[in-house]
Amino acid sequence: MTALGCSQPVGIVGLGLIGGCLGLDLQEAGAEVHALVHRPSTAARARQRGLASRVDTDPAVLADCGLVILALPLDRLLDPDPALLAALPAGAVVTDVGSVKQPVLAAWGPRLRRFVASHPMAGTSRSGVEAGEKGLFQGRPWVATPDADTDPEALEAVRQLATTVGARWLCCDAASHDRAVALISHLPVLVGAALLQTADGGGQASGLGGLVRDLASSGFADTTRVGGGNPELGTLMARCNRSELLAALGRYRQAIAGLERLVELEDWQGLEGVLRECGEVRQEFVG
Amino acid sequence: MTALGCSQPVGIVGLGLIGGCLGLDLQEAGAEVHALVHRPSTAARARQRGLASRVDTDPAVLADCGLVILALPLDRLLDPDPALLAALPAGAVVTDVGSVKQPVLAAWGPRLRRFVASHPMAGTSRSGVEAGEKGLFQGRPWVATPDADTDPEALEAVRQLATTVGARWLCCDAASHDRAVALISHLPVLVGAALLQTADGGGQASGLGGLVRDLASSGFADTTRVGGGNPELGTLMARCNRSELLAALGRYRQAIAGLERLVELEDWQGLEGVLRECGEVRQEFVG
Repeated sequence: MTALGCSQPVGIVGLGLIGGCLGLDLQEAGAEVHALVHRPSTAARARQRGLASRVDTDPAVLADCGLVILALPLDRLLDPDPALLAALPAGAVVTDVGSVKQPVLAAWGPRLRRFVASHPMAGTSRSGVEAGEKGLFQGRPWVATPDADTDPEALEAVRQLATTVGARWLCCDAASHDRAVALISHLPVLVGAALLQTADGGGQASGLGGLVRDLASSGFADTTRVGGGNPELGTLMARCNRSELLAALGRYRQAIAGLERLVELEDWQGLEGVLRECGEVRQEFVG
Repeated sequence: MTALGCSQPVGIVGLGLIGGCLGLDLQEAGAEVHALVHRPSTAARARQRGLASRVDTDPAVLADCGLVILALPLDRLLDPDPALLAALPAGAVVTDVGSVKQPVLAAWGPRLRRFVASHPMAGTSRSGVEAGEKGLFQGRPWVATPDADTDPEALEAVRQLATTVGARWLCCDAASHDRAVALISHLPVLVGAALLQTADGGGQASGLGGLVRDLASSGFADTTRVGGGNPELGTLMARCNRSELLAALGRYRQAIAGLERLVELEDWQGLEGVLRECGEVRQEFVG
């Protein structure tokens, strides 16, 4: 007996942060999990950590899986290994976890009858086979972006997957998803990175490199957390969501210029009004 | 018997977040704390909460204090009440907790023989008489900015105060402090505020106001925490550190433009290199 209302094993391709977390949570929920990884050393460590019931570097490990989750980095997802494609069981529901949905849907939708593009919105600063931990998805959004061709039964199977690991299920179209994540997920990476560059460069330029490091505290740490995160992931998100990210950056540049103007003009009432509105907006966004 | 190697009570002027936290921690360390507040209702609540041994709206409560901490907002600190000035005991060591040091030193240094400008770098999202909590300063920087006229014994008394509440003691000149905090403390407020404006405005402009709110997760919450904080405090910091903040904003605007250019040019290797450096810089800043 396995979870997700189905007696077949669940397949996971890739046991990095997201794949590893899913493997642990799905097994906890009673599912049998078969995982495909790239390197033998990863397979050995994943077995030690118990990230899946079976772990192999041979795509045949996916045979008999009724649901397969492609937990691959965006670049490998968009340019999949032919051996992986050949090994996906006919009739299996296949979903991904990529943070940009239009290119994924374009690449995979026409290829597989029962593909569902989806995006569990959760992360930590860790990556790789050591990163998986239980409970990562609890209460976090899991967004699917079905289109007119998406099989409703396949969509339902992915919804069950998401709710099984405690995520909050949402659906929207892929273009809206990509625009929204550019604003709330991809832009913050560059916002924080630019702050790190500024504090470092501004400190060095004044001979205060040591002092800025000594004084940086929790506010600086929080504001730069995602900006100092995984560089490969940040670059892939920018590459795969370039036009939406550029639109968000243009809008952000104007917002910075607007705040700079208020400080320049010493319009303190105006600045306080803007900051008050920002506090209210933040309440609406993150409570 | 009181703390800080002195039998006299410690005075605190203002029982907001910083004053309230100091009151609790100093009493825990064995000091007798006398506090002056503005409103009778604040005095009543501060007494209920036990923020000080004695709380009054009459400046005479500071009589006999050997050390007085001015825990006032920057505007009231820079334009002090004459009744407060008259009530400060002759010979007392006086320090402040303001987040900008040059104007504080200019206003208070010539006025009092034993004034020490200082800045405990700690905060939460709370403010007012309910905000005080124990242990806020533990391991956090407490910076003093003595100048040639600062009394060394007074400086030592403030160092003992800082270490009594568990803070990490640092000294630097006031100009260096103000430049450094513009980069690592005041700029992040505007960086996060601009991100809130962008996500809200970009969402509204595309009819995705609901979706951006649904999808915003921990990365967005962290990046905007200080940007959505106390608007009065953010404005006062900008007002009192205007020229350093403008310099930091100019540098930040260039950093954003540089990242935008890499995305525009599809220089993914360049972007990944910058993000990798940012991750290393963040390790140096906040470990």
